[in-house]
Amino acid sequence: MEVEQMSHPERVFDAMKARIVQVLKKTKKLGKDDPRRVIHSLKVGLALTLVSLLYYIRPVYDGFGVSTMWAVLTVIVVMEYSVGATISKGLNRAFATLLGGSLGLGAHQIAELLGEKGEPVFLGVSVFLLASGATFSRFFPRIKARYDYGVTIFILSFSLVSMSSYRIEDIVELGHQRLSTVAIGVTVCLCVSMFICPVWAGGELQELIALNIEKLASFLEGLSTLYFAENDGGDVSKEKKNLLFQGYRSVLNSKSTEDALANFARWEPGHGRFQFKHPWSQYLKIGTLIRQCACHIETLHSILNSDNQALLDIDDNTRLMLYNLSSESSKTLSELASSIQSMTVPTVVTSFARGATIATNGIKAATVASLLIEIAACVERVVGSVGELAE
Amino acid sequence: MEVEQMSHPERVFDAMKARIVQVLKKTKKLGKDDPRRVIHSLKVGLALTLVSLLYYIRPVYDGFGVSTMWAVLTVIVVMEYSVGATISKGLNRAFATLLGGSLGLGAHQIAELLGEKGEPVFLGVSVFLLASGATFSRFFPRIKARYDYGVTIFILSFSLVSMSSYRIEDIVELGHQRLSTVAIGVTVCLCVSMFICPVWAGGELQELIALNIEKLASFLEGLSTLYFAENDGGDVSKEKKNLLFQGYRSVLNSKSTEDALANFARWEPGHGRFQFKHPWSQYLKIGTLIRQCACHIETLHSILNSDNQALLDIDDNTRLMLYNLSSESSKTLSELASSIQSMTVPTVVTSFARGATIATNGIKAATVASLLIEIAACVERVVGSVGELAE
Repeated sequence: MEVEQMSHPERVFDAMKARIVQVLKKTKKLGKDDPRRVIHSLKVGLALTLVSLLYYIRPVYDGFGVSTMWAVLTVIVVMEYSVGATISKGLNRAFATLLGGSLGLGAHQIAELLGEKGEPVFLGVSVFLLASGATFSRFFPRIKARYDYGVTIFILSFSLVSMSSYRIEDIVELGHQRLSTVAIGVTVCLCVSMFICPVWAGGELQELIALNIEKLASFLEGLSTLYFAENDGGDVSKEKKNLLFQGYRSVLNSKSTEDALANFARWEPGHGRFQFKHPWSQYLKIGTLIRQCACHIETLHSILNSDNQALLDIDDNTRLMLYNLSSESSKTLSELASSIQSMTVPTVVTSFARGATIATNGIKAATVASLLIEIAACVERVVGSVGELAE
Repeated sequence: MEVEQMSHPERVFDAMKARIVQVLKKTKKLGKDDPRRVIHSLKVGLALTLVSLLYYIRPVYDGFGVSTMWAVLTVIVVMEYSVGATISKGLNRAFATLLGGSLGLGAHQIAELLGEKGEPVFLGVSVFLLASGATFSRFFPRIKARYDYGVTIFILSFSLVSMSSYRIEDIVELGHQRLSTVAIGVTVCLCVSMFICPVWAGGELQELIALNIEKLASFLEGLSTLYFAENDGGDVSKEKKNLLFQGYRSVLNSKSTEDALANFARWEPGHGRFQFKHPWSQYLKIGTLIRQCACHIETLHSILNSDNQALLDIDDNTRLMLYNLSSESSKTLSELASSIQSMTVPTVVTSFARGATIATNGIKAATVASLLIEIAACVERVVGSVGELAE
């Protein structure tokens, strides 16, 4: 065997080479799937290089001194993928630094009045109380959602300013320098994030919702042709069916992504077709309805899976009705998806489910029929919700 | 009217008072609902006060100088609610600081060879490349899940060390000081987090899964008594029904919490009844099955909701079968929940769904029956999964 003739280091080398090739392939795929990932990475590099100029230009560095570091630190932690996330973190950081720093200076002023022994005790107690209180405030869901990062920075600024004041003479000057460098860092992040190939969280949310609706539409389309079309009832290949039932799964778990995107979108200024106070919560409502629809599909899936004979004893009239129900639902969803993307009022018929009656002999077939009617009703609710959004 | 007699400042004052009382009530409720929140807040305060001693003790401060700041900064950002999250962030921070700092020193050594003009150019280019590359690596799902924070700190340490080296003479000494203070901060966090009323992510995950199973159990229990018990078929009060259909909803959206807890649990050392390599992924599998079950319940809910007459034309035999199906499912789930909590092998019967046959005249009733059978089958899968975990 060739493998045995190879020496040990050669084998290790080969294994490493294979691993590296694998990682490179994955990297290439990640970049190709969404080139904005590459652009985002370059944007972070650019923002950091811009802010590093503060170090290399003598007069600037002389002005800020060691505080220059805070600009670098700010860029690294504030720069996020979407504009909304960057704005949210940037504003949180800037205002929390200002607020925490000012309070810290205040604590320093009071502490000075207490004499040499009282000063560290007072500072210690105030840091303890403020940190505990601020940490507890993060358990409020509203604060957690929008100002979590701000609370961290608030504790940080207060602690650093009040503690340093015990050791450093000119604490006001230092605080001023830090605030300026943080402001510079935030500004660089906002400019790079907004003006170079911006990724808007609002647009991402819209895309995600439209994509999810599209996924359900193609499921229902596949269902109608694979299960209810004439001439090929039960004898469809298993792979095709498995493929059909994979597509909608991700819809079920998209809530946390949607919530995060809506949260970031609220921070974004008006841009393109989106106004500043765009009704982002309406997207979340639509998202909930779509997930409900996906839930029904999940149930349908397990019913169809649990009994392969379920749809064999179906009569032609019922088959036609089921075909119509699922293909009409699919068409409606497709139109809704494009109406969300084009931000127009949807022009779809919503009465296709109303005429459906169940007259069939098999119990399973009846269940499938009820579920499809339920899905169709759910689609109608989505129609209503998308309509509200468009208005 | 009294309100009109009040002056403007008085009204503002009253409104403020009402608001403050409201916030205080909310605060009290948050603390009462889970006293560990209060304990966590106090723990953060304690860790911060401990680390602030570095400032107040002269010889220590003389040793670390301004770098003392990094200990404070580390405590504030690393201290998390659960032990696993704290360990994850702490280790990420410590190792990323070491790695990034060392590479930064390396870049500094090379840059020095390039002369006064070449140095900033080389440093700028290397920061740009490293930051872009590291940022891109965060798009790999595995790195995102486990080392996201580490990548941030890696970029941060590399940038700060390499840039500062251009301006500060004794960069090795500075790097050494920073690493030591970060290590002190991480150690303080780990000790406070682990030894004072620890909250283990693993235990939280177990509790969450058991609680979710319990929620489904009480839904099925309620369903059997409200809909299928003898003597009160369709005339149950609407509030009771609405209440019934609220409980299971949160189960549908618990995936992201479960994923995060399992991720943190993997970092935790063995403790109590949990070994170091406890099969956390098995909890996630159970979670997925429970969500599937909740999905079926959601579908059942909308079918029962869409037609109030659905269950009126049901015959007594079917009613009894449905009652048995749902109450047996409920009992099984309850036992599973307590077997998960006590970490014992579940001793439940899993054949209750097998004998169920559907013989009913109403289509809706048949659908409900099919769904209940589906739910029962789902419960059986959960049984298998919990059994695997117990082994």
